[in-house]
Amino acid sequence: MPVGEFDVLDGLDSIPGRLAEAAATLRLVDHHVHGCFVDPIDRGAFEESFNEASTDPIPPFMTQFDSQPGFAFRRWCAPLLGVERHAPADDYWAARASLAPADLDRRLLPPAAVDHWIMDTGFSLRPITTPVEMAAESGGRTSEIVRLELLAEELLAAGIAPAEFADAFRARIAAAAGEAVGFKTIVAYRSGFDIDWAPPGDAAVAIAFAHWAAAEQAKPRLADPVLEAFVVHTALATGRPLQVHVGFGDRDLDLHRTNPMLLLPLLRRPEAARAPIMLLHCYPYHREAGYLAQAFDNVYFDVGLGVNYVGAQSRQVIAESLELAPFAKQLYSSDAFGLPELHLVGSVLWRRGMAAVLARWVAEGEWSEADACRVLQMIGSENARRVYGV
Amino acid sequence: MPVGEFDVLDGLDSIPGRLAEAAATLRLVDHHVHGCFVDPIDRGAFEESFNEASTDPIPPFMTQFDSQPGFAFRRWCAPLLGVERHAPADDYWAARASLAPADLDRRLLPPAAVDHWIMDTGFSLRPITTPVEMAAESGGRTSEIVRLELLAEELLAAGIAPAEFADAFRARIAAAAGEAVGFKTIVAYRSGFDIDWAPPGDAAVAIAFAHWAAAEQAKPRLADPVLEAFVVHTALATGRPLQVHVGFGDRDLDLHRTNPMLLLPLLRRPEAARAPIMLLHCYPYHREAGYLAQAFDNVYFDVGLGVNYVGAQSRQVIAESLELAPFAKQLYSSDAFGLPELHLVGSVLWRRGMAAVLARWVAEGEWSEADACRVLQMIGSENARRVYGV
Amino acid sequence: MPVGEFDVLDGLDSIPGRLAEAAATLRLVDHHVHGCFVDPIDRGAFEESFNEASTDPIPPFMTQFDSQPGFAFRRWCAPLLGVERHAPADDYWAARASLAPADLDRRLLPPAAVDHWIMDTGFSLRPITTPVEMAAESGGRTSEIVRLELLAEELLAAGIAPAEFADAFRARIAAAAGEAVGFKTIVAYRSGFDIDWAPPGDAAVAIAFAHWAAAEQAKPRLADPVLEAFVVHTALATGRPLQVHVGFGDRDLDLHRTNPMLLLPLLRRPEAARAPIMLLHCYPYHREAGYLAQAFDNVYFDVGLGVNYVGAQSRQVIAESLELAPFAKQLYSSDAFGLPELHLVGSVLWRRGMAAVLARWVAEGEWSEADACRVLQMIGSENARRVYGV
Repeated sequence: MPVGEFDVLDGLDSIPGRLAEAAATLRLVDHHVHGCFVDPIDRGAFEESFNEASTDPIPPFMTQFDSQPGFAFRRWCAPLLGVERHAPADDYWAARASLAPADLDRRLLPPAAVDHWIMDTGFSLRPITTPVEMAAESGGRTSEIVRLELLAEELLAAGIAPAEFADAFRARIAAAAGEAVGFKTIVAYRSGFDIDWAPPGDAAVAIAFAHWAAAEQAKPRLADPVLEAFVVHTALATGRPLQVHVGFGDRDLDLHRTNPMLLLPLLRRPEAARAPIMLLHCYPYHREAGYLAQAFDNVYFDVGLGVNYVGAQSRQVIAESLELAPFAKQLYSSDAFGLPELHLVGSVLWRRGMAAVLARWVAEGEWSEADACRVLQMIGSENARRVYGV
Repeated sequence: MPVGEFDVLDGLDSIPGRLAEAAATLRLVDHHVHGCFVDPIDRGAFEESFNEASTDPIPPFMTQFDSQPGFAFRRWCAPLLGVERHAPADDYWAARASLAPADLDRRLLPPAAVDHWIMDTGFSLRPITTPVEMAAESGGRTSEIVRLELLAEELLAAGIAPAEFADAFRARIAAAAGEAVGFKTIVAYRSGFDIDWAPPGDAAVAIAFAHWAAAEQAKPRLADPVLEAFVVHTALATGRPLQVHVGFGDRDLDLHRTNPMLLLPLLRRPEAARAPIMLLHCYPYHREAGYLAQAFDNVYFDVGLGVNYVGAQSRQVIAESLELAPFAKQLYSSDAFGLPELHLVGSVLWRRGMAAVLARWVAEGEWSEADACRVLQMIGSENARRVYGV
Repeated sequence: MPVGEFDVLDGLDSIPGRLAEAAATLRLVDHHVHGCFVDPIDRGAFEESFNEASTDPIPPFMTQFDSQPGFAFRRWCAPLLGVERHAPADDYWAARASLAPADLDRRLLPPAAVDHWIMDTGFSLRPITTPVEMAAESGGRTSEIVRLELLAEELLAAGIAPAEFADAFRARIAAAAGEAVGFKTIVAYRSGFDIDWAPPGDAAVAIAFAHWAAAEQAKPRLADPVLEAFVVHTALATGRPLQVHVGFGDRDLDLHRTNPMLLLPLLRRPEAARAPIMLLHCYPYHREAGYLAQAFDNVYFDVGLGVNYVGAQSRQVIAESLELAPFAKQLYSSDAFGLPELHLVGSVLWRRGMAAVLARWVAEGEWSEADACRVLQMIGSENARRVYGV
């Protein structure tokens, strides 16, 4: 059952035939993903990119290769780079370092078998590939997501007057809605979720913007709760899907304040029902996210990122994602950033985890095999196509 | 190993003989359950009743059949309605719609093999079957649980004077204690758990009641924290078990404010030690509930509701329930409401999950088979019989 | 594959050979553990010591033998006491009661195959064995951990003047650092984690100490947040590892206020980066702990205690511990206290859980067997040796 150059279900016994076929060959929609690093990186930068938690140098007593993503890279990516599976870290690194970034992408992206990448083209410390480059290197199509905080920060940097900010932001959103298939907020990293979610009036927005503009700042950073509520409601008013970062990320984030249950005061507002709300990642709050996806017609979620970062343990996280939420409300994402290893491993682990979990349910008669295949397709592709219109 | 008309352990290999016998034939006590809908319902109402999260119409892009409970209904209930297991949703609905509600009950309730239903006869938007009807349709016995908030709301509706409320409520509780086997509070939905749990004096109760009575309200709804503390302490003083809704329910509930750890200030009070406190459902806080059942002699818990709503994933939730709490402190419930499918599937999934989890521990030598059978009987029946005296 | 007198992997099929050898024979470092009871105890005291949750007498309707640790004792310890595995509780108790405490220790401690016990010699209601006794009875070496709150309480009891407390405490810490391999704080039980973690100045410390000293108290108990911040920062300044109790313990603890995410304001401070911070136990917040161990170079964690208390369910908890954190950031501990059964069962369950979890990943090709053996050694021994210098 090869996907591209390898057998993605290798080592999994007793996956029934049609389910195995579906899990191995389904062309995915990766509904939240970033580009790959354009320039070569050194080994330190490589290991620091295994996860988003910290940008500190790796301490001398350890290597990030000794982690679930490290083991997954050595298992799944090594053969595509010309070294044996489970090759030692130094061998893996030597093989990787001998390839140009674009060559790496062309080896690792196509076997992910992603038909459509929905890309967050926002902030990156290093240059990353554009949607056009991603499409060329992967053989998939691409669409774009626009990050709300960045739009607002660009307006501040452009020196807009406080009284004009609200209209200008609405105009930017309207323009973006012409090209992008959705928006994204990182309010989790900024004010947190426990803010007043009533839509603020333009006068309040102007005052908040004036305070923000008056604060000295080398690099403007939107974190004011009034402005966060404003940009979120402005995006929701377009009816386009709004992606919301939920749960773990880097260590600047107060994880316990990104429990998606803290979004209830927003979700219960009638204005919030106008657009699909996509809860991203969610780990370790994926059970809470599933509850919200069950309780609100317009709420969806995924366990991207979590799947990549827990590697061989991803089967349990995937199983836990298949609890409360109706199957029409779940999606696939890798949230890969920078390293094409992450784009591939996200796909591999999701296919394997789904296949293994569903195969047991089929074997024990709880689910029919036809239903298992159908759910795989809904979560891996169809739901995203319906919600984003891609 | 048939229960009623079907093999409840079908598809589970390698359950040892005595454990399989116990899991398949044990007559359960369902210690928290509701009646079934008396009148025919249309398909929309049917699908909306798969869970309690929302009463919105099902959106056109999806069906609740594509969910864990939907798949479980098609697997376990379909053959009892005359269609094949895993029959398409439309076929399932057609078969179900052709039967009168009481016929459905008589097909689906007896195979649940419940010897005793402990019924919450409180609030329902649609008429539901009484304990007498449930007994007749299922072949089991029934007892009643009285909901505290409802008693208080009835007194308000009857126009009682604030100064007389405390005595009148105590009299109602005393009268109820003569018939009911326990009480239930839905403080989780009302004030939340993080209130002052000191028993309020009658003067404070009268003032709080006066404020409540003075508020205009079409449908009185007890939510005042002083009154909640009063009704809870009044019930506890009888020594009868008090059921407490914990964890997920409908979307009006602030899930994170129903973490049972927030009950610690109540549980530590000496007055709270006078009666068994039964933490219901608890998902996704069942590990926290197990901790409380370990830490307090009078605290018990179940994972009902969760088991039904996560379907094929229930084995993991059941395994997680078997962690900290001594086995004398756990119970079985379905929390089924309205649909007899839920009464049946709760029983089926619990039997299968327990059988599969315990079989592995027996196979690996961690537990003896005799202990596994004994724990099954404790949680499925004996603990409830001891606590409720049924 | 016997460890001491028994086959620790008995009943686990299909553990590959080298991994089985490593799991069965690895000499552990138990990086957080207490001594054993010196004097004989009665059955009530024995059962009350199965866990730390409560010191109430066991209620008459139950026995703590009917719990995961009770079943684990009857499985793993019974044969070492001369009764059959899974012997009835009364037989187990009779065999145990016929042996002197030191004889129990000499039967149960050596098969734990612990090479080095890092002992918290702090508070105990009953006399417990010293490091010297533990070493003699177990055949392992020992090191000591000093509890910060106890040091401060001793200074208060000695009648030190408030203005002299800060210097005196620093001197005590400096002296302790000469002998102990690390420190421990139980701030979780005292002020909780959500305090101001800025290092207080000596003047603020003197004022807080004066208030503490002025309060009447039979048994001084450090709980003041200023003093907690002071003792923690004083210990961190030595560079020695600081153990932090996290997650469940006894019922005096507000579990939800010991979520390790509440330590973020401490962990982000530059002063906190000067020493390894060891998050102990962590259940049910082990996923959050793993996130912190991923995000901060100097944060480590274990799932001790949890493993012992969930018995046969420990495999899942161990699997969950192998998610986010790099493998260099995890350790083994039993947190055994009083009963040598706990010292043994902690080791047995950890070896079995690791073997079973890793064997599946090896069988499915996710991990190499060599990596599995290496990670077992890192978590079971090497990481602790590096961090504590033992």
